[in-house]
Amino acid sequence: MSKKISIAIDAMGGDNSPDKTIKGIKLFLDKNKTHDDFILNIFGKESDIKSKFQKYKIKSNSINIINSNKVVSDAETPMTAVKNSKNTSMWNCIQHQLDGKSDISLSAGNTGVLLVISRMILKMMNEVSKPALAGLWPNQNGMNIVLDLGANIECDDQNLVDFAELGSALFKSLFPDEKPKVSLLNIGSEEIKGTEMLKTTSKRLKALSSDKNFIYNGYIEGNNIMSGDSNVIVTDGFTGNIALKTAEGTVKFITKNLKKSLTENIFSKLSLVLSYFSLKRFKEKLDPRKYNGAIFLGLTGPVVKSHGGIDSIGFYYSIDLCYRIVKGNLMNEIRKNLNQSSD
Amino acid sequence: MSKKISIAIDAMGGDNSPDKTIKGIKLFLDKNKTHDDFILNIFGKESDIKSKFQKYKIKSNSINIINSNKVVSDAETPMTAVKNSKNTSMWNCIQHQLDGKSDISLSAGNTGVLLVISRMILKMMNEVSKPALAGLWPNQNGMNIVLDLGANIECDDQNLVDFAELGSALFKSLFPDEKPKVSLLNIGSEEIKGTEMLKTTSKRLKALSSDKNFIYNGYIEGNNIMSGDSNVIVTDGFTGNIALKTAEGTVKFITKNLKKSLTENIFSKLSLVLSYFSLKRFKEKLDPRKYNGAIFLGLTGPVVKSHGGIDSIGFYYSIDLCYRIVKGNLMNEIRKNLNQSSD
Repeated sequence: MSKKISIAIDAMGGDNSPDKTIKGIKLFLDKNKTHDDFILNIFGKESDIKSKFQKYKIKSNSINIINSNKVVSDAETPMTAVKNSKNTSMWNCIQHQLDGKSDISLSAGNTGVLLVISRMILKMMNEVSKPALAGLWPNQNGMNIVLDLGANIECDDQNLVDFAELGSALFKSLFPDEKPKVSLLNIGSEEIKGTEMLKTTSKRLKALSSDKNFIYNGYIEGNNIMSGDSNVIVTDGFTGNIALKTAEGTVKFITKNLKKSLTENIFSKLSLVLSYFSLKRFKEKLDPRKYNGAIFLGLTGPVVKSHGGIDSIGFYYSIDLCYRIVKGNLMNEIRKNLNQSSD
Repeated sequence: MSKKISIAIDAMGGDNSPDKTIKGIKLFLDKNKTHDDFILNIFGKESDIKSKFQKYKIKSNSINIINSNKVVSDAETPMTAVKNSKNTSMWNCIQHQLDGKSDISLSAGNTGVLLVISRMILKMMNEVSKPALAGLWPNQNGMNIVLDLGANIECDDQNLVDFAELGSALFKSLFPDEKPKVSLLNIGSEEIKGTEMLKTTSKRLKALSSDKNFIYNGYIEGNNIMSGDSNVIVTDGFTGNIALKTAEGTVKFITKNLKKSLTENIFSKLSLVLSYFSLKRFKEKLDPRKYNGAIFLGLTGPVVKSHGGIDSIGFYYSIDLCYRIVKGNLMNEIRKNLNQSSD
């Protein structure tokens, strides 16, 4: 029997936790009843967690509760985190991973603190210049990996080359049947566009482009992120964060106005009844809960940050993401990519 | 009688010109039949323009055709533009404006060339450190001005402060009944977020905030650009370009998938009949033609760039934008703002 996929889950982070996280765990267990290839290590106040387990009638041989009385507060800043967050449920997840007892950690808690203590405890890989936060973003043909989403607000060409390696490794681990196709986010597709740093990065990525690590597709403009021609979008953390949030805001603006239009009179309301299932499928495709979970890459092991405000279904998707990342052998893909480029 | 609003129009720029531009001009003339407060100076091949005027049965006392045999080609680059674009229809528009015979210029032609020759001929205002390209962007309560959209890929705090002054002056000229509320685009709303340059800019904007020029609302994240809390969004040209195009791509992605969902079966198709007028109004609100026209600010006079691929209705909207900008006395608002901040 091969080693089980072992996931460390901070049950205490995010809004409405541990209720939300435990409901998410229940969903994951229900959907994976026939699998016994994983173990969920749940960190938090044991009594709280056990009472939720009773409430939701959870029984499983695939769980392991590890008591942590302390919780990272929302008010904590990255500056004070190292001093104050020791032995919290979040800290203990990462420590468990460092000790080799978990393959990946998941938390919906304070983002800044999670990034700081993950980096401090797990340490950066020697071959990587900066770690990055990667996210899933739907495109016309499937799914993009976009990075960095905000871990590094200023980047040089080495950082962006590393992000391309890390992002395409993540893509391969999640979608083993597809080829990673990398593009560099820029304000034009012609070679003369953008900063000198981007031009240098583009030349380096072109030289690295191969069937073994990733195909480099050149520059991409914001309006083509979702076109599906590329599936790994590389940018600095400032630009990536602005792009992702602008897309989120645009989706919200459109759906709000669409809803208003479709409920404004009796005809449009009737039409809603007829198109109910079609609109439901449309809504499902855009459901942000499906894309929940930003992946912190470049450390000696992966850490996933769930959105703090997401509900239990969104939290379930982030557990599933952890499971798929480990099953897809992310760290192995990263090492293969990095070896490829140092050849 | 006060001086007429005088608009220089390059009839030859963009796809399907001059057919598209002349049809746009016809629309503008039809909608402003009762106004005689403007004159359109139309630059291009006189014979082509006159035959289109016959084709579309255009008769008006508010037009003035000025023959320009040369046209700026799409292949022209900003590097070669100064040498090759002399006496083109685009060049002659700007020259007409410099000579005081037009108040504003409009072209759907080559963007790079338009920016370079506008800057060369009209010159920058002494009080401004860099010119910027501003655009209209809908929000939940009305309309945003967003700048810079790509004229300057790297900016310092002085540039961004200037953009805030220019953008709020443009807002006042277009929406005289509303107050300009400036926000600085950033990856978080807390004061500690972002680069040192943004922190310095934010402090300077806070000091300039007043009822007389603009109210400064602090940082804004990408997801709140369309919330309507602010209406002048300031950022560097790299970030602004990525944000605008990402929003455009997102709108396209959603409408494409929505259309697919609403035509997938007989029920959803029937629903389309019932919701026809509601969806039409929704579509109209998002119609990109309504927001056509990027405004080049910071020179001794304003220049408007219409999207090259837009149709005649979109071109009409950019003529209307020129009319409203001059009527709203943009240059006066800019001078008032700049005096305010040098007090």
